[in-house]
Amino acid sequence: MKKPTLPKGTRDFGPSQMAKRQYILEIIKKVFQKYGFQPLETPAMENLSTLTGKYGEEGDQLLFKILNSGDFLKNTNAQMLESKNSKGITFDISEKGLRYDLTVPFARYVVMNRNEITFPFKRYQIQPVWRADRPQKGRYREFYQCDADVVGTDSLLCEAEIVLMIGEVMRRLGIVDYSLKVNHRAILTGMAELCGVKGNEASFFVAIDKLDKIGEEKVKEELLARNFSESSLVTLFEMLNFSGTTQQKIEFLTSKFLTISGGKKGISDLKEVLTLLSEYGAPENHVEFDIGLARGLSYYTGCIFEVKINNVSIGSVSGGGRYDNLTGVFGLPDVSGVGFSFGVDRLYDAMEELNLFPLETQISSQVLLVHFDEESKRYGLKILKTLRENGIASEIYPDSVKIQKQLDYANKKMVPYTIVIGSEEMKSGILAFKNMNTGEQQKYTLNQIVSLIIQPNGR
Amino acid sequence: MKKPTLPKGTRDFGPSQMAKRQYILEIIKKVFQKYGFQPLETPAMENLSTLTGKYGEEGDQLLFKILNSGDFLKNTNAQMLESKNSKGITFDISEKGLRYDLTVPFARYVVMNRNEITFPFKRYQIQPVWRADRPQKGRYREFYQCDADVVGTDSLLCEAEIVLMIGEVMRRLGIVDYSLKVNHRAILTGMAELCGVKGNEASFFVAIDKLDKIGEEKVKEELLARNFSESSLVTLFEMLNFSGTTQQKIEFLTSKFLTISGGKKGISDLKEVLTLLSEYGAPENHVEFDIGLARGLSYYTGCIFEVKINNVSIGSVSGGGRYDNLTGVFGLPDVSGVGFSFGVDRLYDAMEELNLFPLETQISSQVLLVHFDEESKRYGLKILKTLRENGIASEIYPDSVKIQKQLDYANKKMVPYTIVIGSEEMKSGILAFKNMNTGEQQKYTLNQIVSLIIQPNGR
Repeated sequence: MKKPTLPKGTRDFGPSQMAKRQYILEIIKKVFQKYGFQPLETPAMENLSTLTGKYGEEGDQLLFKILNSGDFLKNTNAQMLESKNSKGITFDISEKGLRYDLTVPFARYVVMNRNEITFPFKRYQIQPVWRADRPQKGRYREFYQCDADVVGTDSLLCEAEIVLMIGEVMRRLGIVDYSLKVNHRAILTGMAELCGVKGNEASFFVAIDKLDKIGEEKVKEELLARNFSESSLVTLFEMLNFSGTTQQKIEFLTSKFLTISGGKKGISDLKEVLTLLSEYGAPENHVEFDIGLARGLSYYTGCIFEVKINNVSIGSVSGGGRYDNLTGVFGLPDVSGVGFSFGVDRLYDAMEELNLFPLETQISSQVLLVHFDEESKRYGLKILKTLRENGIASEIYPDSVKIQKQLDYANKKMVPYTIVIGSEEMKSGILAFKNMNTGEQQKYTLNQIVSLIIQPNGR
Repeated sequence: MKKPTLPKGTRDFGPSQMAKRQYILEIIKKVFQKYGFQPLETPAMENLSTLTGKYGEEGDQLLFKILNSGDFLKNTNAQMLESKNSKGITFDISEKGLRYDLTVPFARYVVMNRNEITFPFKRYQIQPVWRADRPQKGRYREFYQCDADVVGTDSLLCEAEIVLMIGEVMRRLGIVDYSLKVNHRAILTGMAELCGVKGNEASFFVAIDKLDKIGEEKVKEELLARNFSESSLVTLFEMLNFSGTTQQKIEFLTSKFLTISGGKKGISDLKEVLTLLSEYGAPENHVEFDIGLARGLSYYTGCIFEVKINNVSIGSVSGGGRYDNLTGVFGLPDVSGVGFSFGVDRLYDAMEELNLFPLETQISSQVLLVHFDEESKRYGLKILKTLRENGIASEIYPDSVKIQKQLDYANKKMVPYTIVIGSEEMKSGILAFKNMNTGEQQKYTLNQIVSLIIQPNGR
């Protein structure tokens, strides 16, 4: 018999990984809820008509498609079959696909439920998505996305709240050294106008976005190859290379944008967000104005965010921005909003690299009851009941096997305490309580043990 | 533009449903963890070689299959295509499918990770599964399963622990009127032997399993039609119709099984589980010995469970049993265990019918800050910060719109308190605190409000 395998690019999450993932997700959920965001879940499968045409041609090819049930070939075109035209028959044999992100299903939900939704609608959504990408290190075919969006308002308070939420999540996760980079679509447009490339922005921004990865020289080469003029590059890099605080950058660009109304609007939005943050009283907001941040520009129309953890191998763990047309593709215009997403896998990897997971995440049971025989096992049942009634996660080894085997089980499962029950313990009611980390063993009554576990430092 | 729709048999879970679902799942997870169970998640997609042949021929047809990426027709058989033989080319154009349950992926996980797993392995798994079933009321193509299993031990303590876990989940959910029906595969086999139908058990049990649904007469008709003798039916219904307590049923069957060794073993297992429960001190264990319970018999080899909530339309919310061969299909023999599953959708429906969801599940934010203008909104930001620092989920309406619109938002979102900020409040620091349920409004300092929300009854 062939050993079973996992499909390429997919993963199991065993107990230890799950505990760490749940630790991250619980913190994120609690913060989202504290800020008034409500949960949404959509089905894994969507109609292909909902999914296709939303992610570009490349995206369409990365959709996992579900084969229709039953006699799926029945109504296909015989000629297409004969010529083995895979592309030509795809939509005849497949009506549904797996969701590719959480944004399109969210947009579909908003359109379908627009009359019941209370706007402004603050929703969060934490679910896996699937992409038929070539798997490689850190890139999977199934991975979780974790989105929060506010739709139905233009208020810049939402941008400020996103900064606050990201800050609270990072603080609770113990991540201190990170940057929350912000830019604004209108600032990028203003820069393009200043450079005299107003009608040809897209490839201009694509090149800028690569600055981090390929460096100034290569970006310049690429722009020249795309027929941008030397003088436009001089203007561009004067701005990109301006170094200073966020405040100094704002002043610098304000002076540049005197006659550029779009750019002015971008700057004033950014200033407003910073003012709201300071009025809220968020001293450490980690915000850095990054003129070169140019992500998601086919989609974002206002502020743009990206969160990078410093000094780890994969730093970018969150991103987002404001859009003015979430649901236009589904026939409902003018639904604007702002949202962002945490990359759970990347947060996980960064937390591992920084050694930030508390040891406690790995503890499932607090106590294992260890016994010598059937009689002491039965005696242990009453102890187990008392422990659990006091909210203490605990178990008894199910079989009467050698003590060492039971202790091994406790060690492998990282159970911090064991109670060994033998004939003496049954007679006296005084139990042998062992700290598995220190190896220290002492005799206590059950009540004393309960207190010790609930308040380990005697507080 | 066509309005978007959901695929047949799938659902969105909006904020209100999500809150209720999370309420149920959180309780289940907490109980599982308290009993030492650890979480596992497996990918939505499995290789079809892992899935097919595990659920019978009907099950294979209900698998959702994923169309291979790229030029999927390239290596298909031209003749099969020409004759439009859907079945014949299915496995040529599809290598992966969506998981159909959580048991097969669990078995695959155990086989692939047998050297790292700590046995006995207590795992729980809460994930959606997909079946291309004909959708109907209460039957969906995507639904959550919620499984807990212990593998790698024969100890009947695990059966007792399952009874305890079910009991604790039901108690915490507020469900009091339910029965936990148990039977044992060997008792059924013993009954078959007594009835003289030893070699022909399968269709015998299938008929018994329908007793609840179609009644005694129809079951008798069906058995006669299948050539079971009149006398075997007399013996069978003498046992099925025996009424009495669990204790009385055990005594009755003990006297019947004097020479039937299989039946004896079943009775002694059952007695042992009941003894363990009583030694643990579980007085209200809701256990009812049901001689007619005959579910999952192609799979279960020991105790069988089913939980039914009384006086609701769909009563069966949980089931499970012991099996002696979880992983044999993947080439790893002798992995035995016992497990059970909660039907989340059914629990949800029963809870709705019994009106058991606490109102608090519907509350997302505790407080909405309501303001008259930009100035009072900005003043509100500091208040918001204090509320959140005290762990109070709260929000401020993002736009400066009419007060009534802001209060409507609070009402629709079931926010229980509002704080209205006007010029007077900004001057004095004394805030108008409104209970949205009673309509009562009083003036308090922010500190007083924080105390009132944290300790609503003044405790």
